[in-house]
Amino acid sequence: MKLICSKSNLLNGVQIVSRAVPNKTTMSILECILIDASNGLITLTANDMDLGIETVIEGEILEKGLIALDAKIFLEIVRKLPDSSIRIETDASYKTIITCEKAKFTLMGKSGEDFSYLPVVEKEESISISQFTLKEMVRQTIFSIADNDNNKLMTGELFEINGDELKLVSSDGHRISIRKIQLRETYAPKKVIVPGKTLNEVSRILPGGADSFLTIYFTSKHIVFEFENTVVVSRLIEGEYFNIDRMLSSDYETKVRVNKKEFLNCIDRATLLTREGDRKPIVINISDAGMALRIESALGSMNEDIDIEKQGRDLMIGFNPKFLIDALRVIDEEEVDLYMVNPKAPCFIKNEDKGYIYLILPVSLVANYAGRQ
Amino acid sequence: MKLICSKSNLLNGVQIVSRAVPNKTTMSILECILIDASNGLITLTANDMDLGIETVIEGEILEKGLIALDAKIFLEIVRKLPDSSIRIETDASYKTIITCEKAKFTLMGKSGEDFSYLPVVEKEESISISQFTLKEMVRQTIFSIADNDNNKLMTGELFEINGDELKLVSSDGHRISIRKIQLRETYAPKKVIVPGKTLNEVSRILPGGADSFLTIYFTSKHIVFEFENTVVVSRLIEGEYFNIDRMLSSDYETKVRVNKKEFLNCIDRATLLTREGDRKPIVINISDAGMALRIESALGSMNEDIDIEKQGRDLMIGFNPKFLIDALRVIDEEEVDLYMVNPKAPCFIKNEDKGYIYLILPVSLVANYAGRQ
Repeated sequence: MKLICSKSNLLNGVQIVSRAVPNKTTMSILECILIDASNGLITLTANDMDLGIETVIEGEILEKGLIALDAKIFLEIVRKLPDSSIRIETDASYKTIITCEKAKFTLMGKSGEDFSYLPVVEKEESISISQFTLKEMVRQTIFSIADNDNNKLMTGELFEINGDELKLVSSDGHRISIRKIQLRETYAPKKVIVPGKTLNEVSRILPGGADSFLTIYFTSKHIVFEFENTVVVSRLIEGEYFNIDRMLSSDYETKVRVNKKEFLNCIDRATLLTREGDRKPIVINISDAGMALRIESALGSMNEDIDIEKQGRDLMIGFNPKFLIDALRVIDEEEVDLYMVNPKAPCFIKNEDKGYIYLILPVSLVANYAGRQ
Repeated sequence: MKLICSKSNLLNGVQIVSRAVPNKTTMSILECILIDASNGLITLTANDMDLGIETVIEGEILEKGLIALDAKIFLEIVRKLPDSSIRIETDASYKTIITCEKAKFTLMGKSGEDFSYLPVVEKEESISISQFTLKEMVRQTIFSIADNDNNKLMTGELFEINGDELKLVSSDGHRISIRKIQLRETYAPKKVIVPGKTLNEVSRILPGGADSFLTIYFTSKHIVFEFENTVVVSRLIEGEYFNIDRMLSSDYETKVRVNKKEFLNCIDRATLLTREGDRKPIVINISDAGMALRIESALGSMNEDIDIEKQGRDLMIGFNPKFLIDALRVIDEEEVDLYMVNPKAPCFIKNEDKGYIYLILPVSLVANYAGRQ
């Protein structure tokens, strides 16, 4: 194989596919990027068997061929080469010479034939969505997927299509995040669970223009994201996502409207006094006088009053402050509405058109503040 | 104690003195910042017994007193409070209430009487130097102090004053860094060894204006840095710094002038192929054709040619690439001169007025490239 391409094209391509290179693996070929120039295009591929990314870069092929190169070292080399044209040349023993201006690297590659290509996926059902919108929806839900494998379903997000509505749902068992948007067209109903890692990586490599679209294909086992010169193929998580609709209720006893930034800053300050794992709740006391927040820990205590618009009953309720912070951070509105029933029922943060719903389970105050209520 | 000050003044002061709070200590009072408002000024102090920092902040004292507060939590609280005026109030049991707008923190402080004040130092001998210059001199030498305590002297830098010349010297045994500048006045000769940690912290908190000066006082056991409202007192390292003059020679057999950026980028690229601790030297082959750099490791090899102006003999010499990188990174000139004698003698990188001298010991190539020379 012999090819020439610009540093910027190559770097961009290698950075994109590197997202699918596993950190740890026992199969050393998976730590490689495949450069395939055997059929007129220069295609870079990485594949950890769950997630695969392929991207085509511009360049000139002087001699057809293919080679697998260690992804980490190859990325580092390309990154540090001068901003000029790069020549990659391999011989029959997989020795690879990378030259750029006066710098010349020699590496040992692996046979491209040993590389696992991306699965061939039938592209029948698809939707089209703006790159920006998908990135936003992922950002606004991904934080509440489960961070361990105890329940495999919860490590992914539900992608549900109903007519012209796309809904993303994530939950770690203590909270649920839901984002809905309207698509430009109407599609057949669809329900799949996409691994959180896939969504993170797709978000990272999507250029994200509001006017740039991407196509998402669904099959029974895979989801495919296609945009510009890049294709991301991921396995789906098998199984049935739990029924969230029965957990959503529009009844409430107490409704509070609060300035988001003020609320967020206050909780953020309060968490100074908590240490990872000490599970101190923030106690919120809602009355006609306003909302009083209080946190107590071994380090000290904090109190703060916040102005609110209140409807309904007075209420004292406790939360894991992190859950409130996570949700408030991704909401773009200046003011948010909290809907609550009692100290043991979930609190909903949602907007009127239900574009987003964050459900957060409260923390029991009895163990923490026994006798103080 | 009862006082009011602005968030920005308090934050600035706490950030400055926090640099002297030890990360680990068995004496919990050392983890505190002392707020002393007992004599008309608001003074913040931290002291790890080797290094102490004191700074005076503006504010209003409503009730005299003093309190010691946990530095870490106090800094975090001040940082996250709104940008408004902060009120600090303590009672006889050292309970401390910090209020800012509607936020109220309650912490348990410690008696300020238990705090170790900074040593009282006689301010007799002093020099005056621009803040910018001192910061630059430290940046250009600090990287080559020893990173372990095997030789205590090498964990510090030599501060030598001779007439109107100030010289800073650091060495880890494999290389020596020397920076010299001219002071505005002439002083009595002085030679002290200042701990590297002290120089790092002083550099960090010095605002660093070229037109702002600081005063440095010397005693037999301490060095004191005084600027604006801040005083830093540090113990000196006791002992006699090794005689560097006998290692400096102006004889050479080979002199090379090279573009600094090109040289640095090339070595930087070459180190991609080395891993922490595998001690692969970069081999430099100097001839009339130019300078050829070569590195070889288990990962692959790199070659690169660089244009040079050469005087004297051809030479093949090997270096720890990190040592070259460290020195080249802090040199501001576009071109650098390398002076060498033979593959076993130190290489000097220096400018004509000897404002800087970097001495780097070469690495023996015999073990690494036996038979290839």
